[in-house]
Amino acid sequence: MKNSEVLQKDVKSNTIEVTSRRDFFRKTAIYSASALSAASILSPVSVKADEAAIINEVPWGTKLGDPVDKNLYGIPSPYEHSNIRRTHDLFSSGDAYASVSMCPIHESEGIITPNGLFFTRDHGGTAHVDPNEWRLMIHGKVKKEIVLTLEDLKKYPSESRIYFIECPANGSPEWRGPQFNSLQFMKGLMSAAQWTGVMLKTILDDLGLEKDAIWMLAEGSDNASNPRSIPVEKALDDVMVVWGQNGEALRPEQGYPVRLIVPGWEGNLNTKWLRRLEFSDKPWHSKEETSKYTMLQKSGKAIRYFWVNEVNSVITSPCPEKPWTNLKKGEMVEIEGLAWSGHGTIKGVDISFDGGDNWVEAKLKGLVLPKSWTRFSYVIKWDGKPLLLASRSYDDFGNIQPTIDQETSAVGVESVYHRNAIVTWEITSKGECNNVQIRKHKKA
Amino acid sequence: MKNSEVLQKDVKSNTIEVTSRRDFFRKTAIYSASALSAASILSPVSVKADEAAIINEVPWGTKLGDPVDKNLYGIPSPYEHSNIRRTHDLFSSGDAYASVSMCPIHESEGIITPNGLFFTRDHGGTAHVDPNEWRLMIHGKVKKEIVLTLEDLKKYPSESRIYFIECPANGSPEWRGPQFNSLQFMKGLMSAAQWTGVMLKTILDDLGLEKDAIWMLAEGSDNASNPRSIPVEKALDDVMVVWGQNGEALRPEQGYPVRLIVPGWEGNLNTKWLRRLEFSDKPWHSKEETSKYTMLQKSGKAIRYFWVNEVNSVITSPCPEKPWTNLKKGEMVEIEGLAWSGHGTIKGVDISFDGGDNWVEAKLKGLVLPKSWTRFSYVIKWDGKPLLLASRSYDDFGNIQPTIDQETSAVGVESVYHRNAIVTWEITSKGECNNVQIRKHKKA
Repeated sequence: MKNSEVLQKDVKSNTIEVTSRRDFFRKTAIYSASALSAASILSPVSVKADEAAIINEVPWGTKLGDPVDKNLYGIPSPYEHSNIRRTHDLFSSGDAYASVSMCPIHESEGIITPNGLFFTRDHGGTAHVDPNEWRLMIHGKVKKEIVLTLEDLKKYPSESRIYFIECPANGSPEWRGPQFNSLQFMKGLMSAAQWTGVMLKTILDDLGLEKDAIWMLAEGSDNASNPRSIPVEKALDDVMVVWGQNGEALRPEQGYPVRLIVPGWEGNLNTKWLRRLEFSDKPWHSKEETSKYTMLQKSGKAIRYFWVNEVNSVITSPCPEKPWTNLKKGEMVEIEGLAWSGHGTIKGVDISFDGGDNWVEAKLKGLVLPKSWTRFSYVIKWDGKPLLLASRSYDDFGNIQPTIDQETSAVGVESVYHRNAIVTWEITSKGECNNVQIRKHKKA
Repeated sequence: MKNSEVLQKDVKSNTIEVTSRRDFFRKTAIYSASALSAASILSPVSVKADEAAIINEVPWGTKLGDPVDKNLYGIPSPYEHSNIRRTHDLFSSGDAYASVSMCPIHESEGIITPNGLFFTRDHGGTAHVDPNEWRLMIHGKVKKEIVLTLEDLKKYPSESRIYFIECPANGSPEWRGPQFNSLQFMKGLMSAAQWTGVMLKTILDDLGLEKDAIWMLAEGSDNASNPRSIPVEKALDDVMVVWGQNGEALRPEQGYPVRLIVPGWEGNLNTKWLRRLEFSDKPWHSKEETSKYTMLQKSGKAIRYFWVNEVNSVITSPCPEKPWTNLKKGEMVEIEGLAWSGHGTIKGVDISFDGGDNWVEAKLKGLVLPKSWTRFSYVIKWDGKPLLLASRSYDDFGNIQPTIDQETSAVGVESVYHRNAIVTWEITSKGECNNVQIRKHKKA
């Protein structure tokens, strides 16, 4: 830097005078364009400026609020009591320990899930690990075997990256026809966060891998341990050993103090309460990858080591929890949703109003990151007629979401995993929103 | 999309066989390169693989954890009890209502602050607003005056963007010499989040501004109301009216249900519990912009309407709370920190080991977004000798952080606001880290 004498000249040397709308603020192009056209969005909602509610005194305007020391770690407003994770017996036969909780994705905003709402799937309940007793062993076909404390691990240079995690059972009841009239129960086995930790490649470059180290075993320190085999090329690509989630330590139910992040791949590979990484020339064929997390096909054979969460999308507004029943005819409304692909980056999303016969291209909005949630948007003026609303996404690997018929003809209906067929919402003339299944599109 | 027949061919049509380290996973370049060189980071920390702690049974490995329904809105691990906001009388004369709480930025990770740790500054305590009673009035020099409910507001197309907020008093005690041997108390009046809401421009395009509407008043619905004048060109540039923070509703202490976001500008302009936006051809000269939030100069005159948080940076590791006292001589260690500028995007950060006489360029890591926290990193092998560690950042507007002498010669020392001079940590031979002030650099 040469210009060390430059001292915020535009601010500190004199008072700014604002006398016109000169556009002296530089525009930033990092965020995608808004989906909004110049059309008047709220035109039909004309409200008088003298409405009582803005004139009347309100209790929070006339007395002191809470002192600051009441709230050194904050919690949500008591009015937000329904924005919580929910659980359902269908996924766990009523076993509250080997169970799941779904993220309220109908209430989610942007591409980050707050830590208190991140979905959970445990095989033996939430472990409470003492970080002082926690150790990570890395052994097998490595040149230097090692046992790390948390302090050792944090000596490595850290990275922070935004990735989604999705359970392969997300949407699984849909294989048997529409089960839930609820977005949260249908697609809430996923969430997204900023993860902070060390790239596994950094550690492995440090320790040195044997030449025939082709497979890695990841194992948790909880009672279920959930051992899984992961190819070393994935480990060396973008796998992370993380201790931070959205700017603070992992929560207990997310694997505190340390978990694995395997971007874009099945949630169960993202080992929580991590204790051991072993390297070998063969996979381990653990229970979790032979009796579970395989994909049974019509032939009777199962696909094993089926890792990638495929390209997917769902409309989050409207949805059964957010219908258009209060929308007036002729009002503008934003159709919004989430798209994601474990292969890479979302390149586009199409929207259909007639159950998949015709499609228009939605706009992507906000940050578009690899193996991350991507928001799409389409603004319409609803005329009050029934619709069959659907979305289909495509990624930078040329993958596109299949119709239900395309998906079942490829993999059958015997499995419960990796559902990524197009989701369709029926909008009735009253604005209700229902989960329906359109199996085959006329023009598909 | 033409290729609707393409159906995840690489996954669903056959089982993947992994027999070599073929690099078939596409690399993504969206994140900056890691700061790590090929050097062995942990070489001096050689631990035997048979260490007791990894062999012995641990209680969380031998019994069931918590059932899922114990935790439908999660909280941090009890071991993280010290990662909380902290308050200090120096900022509020002991008044817990007109007070502040500092974000534990020494524990922060990446570019997001979790909602429970986002710093607070209230003029009359935390208001608890009923979202059903909340209204926003937009009036004055607009063609259509309006009173919006929360439901009305959410009908506008939404955007999600990541921005920091910084109180102009961040670092203010430093004007009188080093006050705190603590990063949290020194620089914790800032945080960063993903904000979701509507661009104010979208609403104003809808309502129509009068030609001479040059100023906007923003006012809160709490007892303090904190009225502030904001130029309309900023309102039309990137100001947002937001209801979401990091993927959920705003917390009460952040202005639930709706606040203003004025990216890069003084925190007090980001009006919480927003109730009113008025448009005029003149500013309002409110108490908060005449008796407070002005910048007194040597001349006795004060700078008013001093909005932008200038280019700034601080090393977060090491820091007084995270010293190198456990670092062994010759071990590699990452120097890491935060840089930010209310003008735009961080272009680079330099690091000095000798109190500012010589500088080297650090690497930026992770996402680099405008008016957002940016992480920088530099990996060194510490030889155990004392250091004077400093960072200085520069932005895409050509601004660069000043030395203390440069800053005080420009604006004097009578004010308490907008401190952005270079911060220096003294590292002793024992690895302790102290806040010291280097006023003038030899080569500056």
